[in-house]
Amino acid sequence: MMRGVSVIGVGMIPFGKYPERKLADLGWPAVKAAIADAGLEPRRLEGAYCGTALGGMMSGQRVLGRLGLTGLPITNVENACSSSSSAFRQGVMAIEAGQYDVVLVIGVEKLTKFGGGTLPLEEEDWEVRLGLSMPALYAMRAQRYMHDFGLTREQLALVSVKNRKHGAMNPDAQMRKPVTLGEVLDSRPIADPFTLLQCCPTGDGAAAIVLCATAIAREFRSDPIHVLASDLTSGKFMTGFRDMTIPEITVRGAKKAYEHAGVGPEDLDVAEVHDAFSIAELLYYEAFGLCGRGEAGAFIESGATTFGGKIVVNPSGGLLAKGHPVGATGAAQVVEIVRQLRGEAGERQVDGARLGLTHATGGGISGFDHGACAIHILAR
Amino acid sequence: MMRGVSVIGVGMIPFGKYPERKLADLGWPAVKAAIADAGLEPRRLEGAYCGTALGGMMSGQRVLGRLGLTGLPITNVENACSSSSSAFRQGVMAIEAGQYDVVLVIGVEKLTKFGGGTLPLEEEDWEVRLGLSMPALYAMRAQRYMHDFGLTREQLALVSVKNRKHGAMNPDAQMRKPVTLGEVLDSRPIADPFTLLQCCPTGDGAAAIVLCATAIAREFRSDPIHVLASDLTSGKFMTGFRDMTIPEITVRGAKKAYEHAGVGPEDLDVAEVHDAFSIAELLYYEAFGLCGRGEAGAFIESGATTFGGKIVVNPSGGLLAKGHPVGATGAAQVVEIVRQLRGEAGERQVDGARLGLTHATGGGISGFDHGACAIHILAR
Repeated sequence: MMRGVSVIGVGMIPFGKYPERKLADLGWPAVKAAIADAGLEPRRLEGAYCGTALGGMMSGQRVLGRLGLTGLPITNVENACSSSSSAFRQGVMAIEAGQYDVVLVIGVEKLTKFGGGTLPLEEEDWEVRLGLSMPALYAMRAQRYMHDFGLTREQLALVSVKNRKHGAMNPDAQMRKPVTLGEVLDSRPIADPFTLLQCCPTGDGAAAIVLCATAIAREFRSDPIHVLASDLTSGKFMTGFRDMTIPEITVRGAKKAYEHAGVGPEDLDVAEVHDAFSIAELLYYEAFGLCGRGEAGAFIESGATTFGGKIVVNPSGGLLAKGHPVGATGAAQVVEIVRQLRGEAGERQVDGARLGLTHATGGGISGFDHGACAIHILAR
Repeated sequence: MMRGVSVIGVGMIPFGKYPERKLADLGWPAVKAAIADAGLEPRRLEGAYCGTALGGMMSGQRVLGRLGLTGLPITNVENACSSSSSAFRQGVMAIEAGQYDVVLVIGVEKLTKFGGGTLPLEEEDWEVRLGLSMPALYAMRAQRYMHDFGLTREQLALVSVKNRKHGAMNPDAQMRKPVTLGEVLDSRPIADPFTLLQCCPTGDGAAAIVLCATAIAREFRSDPIHVLASDLTSGKFMTGFRDMTIPEITVRGAKKAYEHAGVGPEDLDVAEVHDAFSIAELLYYEAFGLCGRGEAGAFIESGATTFGGKIVVNPSGGLLAKGHPVGATGAAQVVEIVRQLRGEAGERQVDGARLGLTHATGGGISGFDHGACAIHILAR
């Protein structure tokens, strides 16, 4: 019988560009905030997992060294865009295993050190050597989806309008200015059908989470948030043999997570999904069963995924507005869902949110044969 | 009550320089060998942990993609020199937690992509910016130890003579030529007192391990090797305030591992320790309690740590002869100990070996305030 795991502390720094800060100096304020939020004596921490995709060796040790939080076992986890989401899962598993009672999870990334532009990818990836970049790949998915289901450019652009509207209410978002449909459509073309405002920005960031065994959670806070599911899925080797409008890795991951949590899409109040590009969020509506196949365009147009709708998707602003410092993203999604479930989300609070989901996926240009997809379901 | 964990399969490629091979092409032959060694249907694998320090994003996914071993959850782990040792520990923990019954652990690294020379370190590390490199750091430790305990240059050089002698019997070693004491002392000076032959070589490599719940191990092999302890320790923030001849992180780690395994140094038949430089092995003799403080020089001189001695240290040749492709080292240490405990080590077999230890440590130039040290104790 595995032990229950709860979140008792969360913290993050506002995502943005901090070229003058070292990685460790991005990370430590987030950790400090999460520990304070948990009302925890730092010495209670027994282990730490740090997710980073491009932070370099010993990122977790460097961050915790700044706080003097040394001596506890630290393990760094890399799974591209799911790095800190995967670190979260390792933390959950360590508590389930009975190895630790209290664990720290960190996500940290400094993308400004690469000088901006699209994510540096592995040159071993043959698609990368052929010139495929992330915007180009997602653009092909968008083109195909538009062709198959008649999605309009306006419907597609609505994802950015919604998420920038949400981000404007989030003090931790990198992009805090709302934008109109016209502004999205008229922004600089990147990879057709995407304009600039349909691509997530480059930036730096950090987020942190304190996890503990559910049995002791109320020693720290009266409102622990419980982890109902924490699943990792990898891609299958079938590139080119499938429909690229179906994010198969997420479909499989969603099925597992719903099963483990004993819930379905209709039970969710709020979700943070991996909207690296506008089309992505629409594909994930379908992968998570929020709407039927081919219905995502009409679904967002109906307002179903913003405040007052069936479920609020990316209340934080998502990757498009909150930003996407790769390794920090998964942890920041958990921070947002925990704040929502506690009722601490201020003007972007989802009324009466009781059940939320986070979803980070990525790795490998194709996202199919490589790739990692981490999904967590949290409940108050 | 945690479940027991056993090793049922091991494999590696000979360490060396493979500038023409991609990272994935270093990794997959090791994985294939480990799976074959376990007599396992690949579909029985439920999860994988891949350790790499500098392999780049999604190393595990890239390796397993080559074998079509996709779809299972893959997590990449980075802890500098302890990367695949830490990955091994995550695999152990996942089985203990009851998440999986059968897990693959990979260690893989391609250092030739950096063009040789000493390990690229994080420039955020202030000591690195001040010019400190790994050879320089260990040289200072050696100087201090020589000053404090009268260790001679000849005694120090004996570590290389011994490990090169061992490596000459290991078909997987990068350096297979034995060397004389004179050759070690006369080789090119690197950082006094180290000559070239007292520094581990740069190279590429991969190793893999199949772990399973002890309860089912005999389905696969009649001679499973059992994991008695698997511990990770991080450094403490006290740089400059301690005696640099005492590797404090290893002292703490050894204590934990002995406690968890219920054994002491006198029970060990064989050990693979982190001899990145000649002095390191001597300091670890003392840290592991193989001999007393200040006695390491006389201890190696007595032949206590080679064949016929009290305990054989680094029968594989260690980092000095087998090589040190950073992220692959910890997994390769486990490969060696498993072969020794099974009686499969050929001409370098330690007679009647029943209990063995692996030790990988590193990260952060100082190895103190940063750093990770992973120790595993295995028994037949």
